[in-house]
Amino acid sequence: MDPKQIIEKIREKQSNIKSVIFVGCGASKADLYPAKYFLDENAKNLRTNHFTANEFNYATPAAVDDTAIVITASLGGNTPETVQATAKAKELGAHVISLTRSVGSPIANNANYVIYHRFAESYSAKLEKMGYALELAVEILNQYEGYEYYKDMKTGFSKIFDLADKAAKSAIVDAKKFAQEYKDAPIIYVMSSGATHEVAYSTSICLMMEMQWINSGTFHSGEFFHGPFEIVDRDVPFILLMNDGRTRKIDSRALTFLQRFKAKTTVVDALDYGLSSVVPKTVVDYFNPMLITAVFRVYAEELSYARQHALTKRRYMWKLEY
Amino acid sequence: MDPKQIIEKIREKQSNIKSVIFVGCGASKADLYPAKYFLDENAKNLRTNHFTANEFNYATPAAVDDTAIVITASLGGNTPETVQATAKAKELGAHVISLTRSVGSPIANNANYVIYHRFAESYSAKLEKMGYALELAVEILNQYEGYEYYKDMKTGFSKIFDLADKAAKSAIVDAKKFAQEYKDAPIIYVMSSGATHEVAYSTSICLMMEMQWINSGTFHSGEFFHGPFEIVDRDVPFILLMNDGRTRKIDSRALTFLQRFKAKTTVVDALDYGLSSVVPKTVVDYFNPMLITAVFRVYAEELSYARQHALTKRRYMWKLEY
Repeated sequence: MDPKQIIEKIREKQSNIKSVIFVGCGASKADLYPAKYFLDENAKNLRTNHFTANEFNYATPAAVDDTAIVITASLGGNTPETVQATAKAKELGAHVISLTRSVGSPIANNANYVIYHRFAESYSAKLEKMGYALELAVEILNQYEGYEYYKDMKTGFSKIFDLADKAAKSAIVDAKKFAQEYKDAPIIYVMSSGATHEVAYSTSICLMMEMQWINSGTFHSGEFFHGPFEIVDRDVPFILLMNDGRTRKIDSRALTFLQRFKAKTTVVDALDYGLSSVVPKTVVDYFNPMLITAVFRVYAEELSYARQHALTKRRYMWKLEY
Repeated sequence: MDPKQIIEKIREKQSNIKSVIFVGCGASKADLYPAKYFLDENAKNLRTNHFTANEFNYATPAAVDDTAIVITASLGGNTPETVQATAKAKELGAHVISLTRSVGSPIANNANYVIYHRFAESYSAKLEKMGYALELAVEILNQYEGYEYYKDMKTGFSKIFDLADKAAKSAIVDAKKFAQEYKDAPIIYVMSSGATHEVAYSTSICLMMEMQWINSGTFHSGEFFHGPFEIVDRDVPFILLMNDGRTRKIDSRALTFLQRFKAKTTVVDALDYGLSSVVPKTVVDYFNPMLITAVFRVYAEELSYARQHALTKRRYMWKLEY
């Protein structure tokens, strides 16, 4: 079933949905953030929560019952904490939708509804998880509260995947330059704002720390001026993921500061890849994360080649019980 | 007015509150997190959001109207972004409550209701901002939805300040040991879970990056296993803020891993300071952040002495326009 049909089905069963709760771990948690942010920004009645799965398991919120839609995500469908959260949410009567690429996986078997997405096939395939989560959020809002820019979001979804693939392909020269400049960096900070906040987060904790064993920190670019900016000095390495849309001014202010004090700064800017020329301005904010994720993937790949450290290399994950 | 009276006043004006929106910057944003977490965990109808102030200003959520309570915080009462958010929320008809220590400050002048708290007087005075925010959340939940453990929360509030002062005083020996061991650390990671998640965050971005110019990263201890733990190696420095309550198992699992691979690990554990012996177990989760904040302040002070780098020393803040 597609997102629209799933929410229609849920609506047949329950006309009074109060909460939409997003649950995942690591990159699969971060990929749910644009959907959560969309509801935070636009809903007037619907509650939203966003939990790492064991937080949900050990401190299950009181709102999890048949008035809640719980959306869980796990790429391989077997992340133990997320599988458990999916089962728990269903047991408590919630309407559970899971996103995974793995047919017949434990998460798929525990959910009421499953959306299968692709991942390895292309740059845009890697965005399908994030895209389906956002589409679910849009359907929930539109069907339960109404949403003025529903058609504009549909236009955005019809354009973003092609744009992301094109953008990724055009980013290779800049990505190679980035890789050469950052390959020996002892630490790399990553920041963004708006819907892209947790793309910065997953770039830091997954692409840098997990996949490259590079020290990293991350924060909202609006928070930069309330603490982190005191670390800025000549050549301290930053990555700024710049949004095209309402929070661009927040990112721009951070860029001005980084340049003023000659920090080592790499910018990945949705504006450079023409986001608002294909996505309506009314909804452009919500498509930044997908475009920037696709482009930065190329940066991460080039960094891995320059450092001769494959993105799939692990010390602990997949190797040990923990 | 105290938190109970403020919410009674708002209730006289508006019986249909849908959203509770927390807005601040840096440490003042993080200090609102336990209140937000309390509502995330316990509310069945009330929406909650938590924004850094410029996110609120540039991408103001649709829910900000006379059905929203907006709670803003600024220690000195003059953080420009938060002052602007306070004014904007009021202009849109929200019921605005501000927390500050500064009588007659811009934030106080822009709000409908002001709670003045202390700060510099003692370790427990530094917790008043966080405490009042949590008390407001409890009053909102109790008055609008009802809350089963209201009396237990009252007991907790009557005990936590004394306990925190006592705990801080008893922490000095351990804090000096920490300072000696970490004073030359090139990076320090900080993690926690539950209501204490953003104490880890403010420890990282404020106490480490802002006040000590030490590189730092932070994440939820449940997220540790989904990316960041690949950075662990012998002697990589971590601070783990351990909760007494439902999410303790998440923190414990991280500790087991850190010890197994001989990371340089400092634990500040609410259990060691007797939290659940004075706060009812039904609500103990929500008092961890206050206790741990008080204790870790002593650690930060000792670190600043060992490094001969005052906690008040800045390169940019208070010195430049930016």
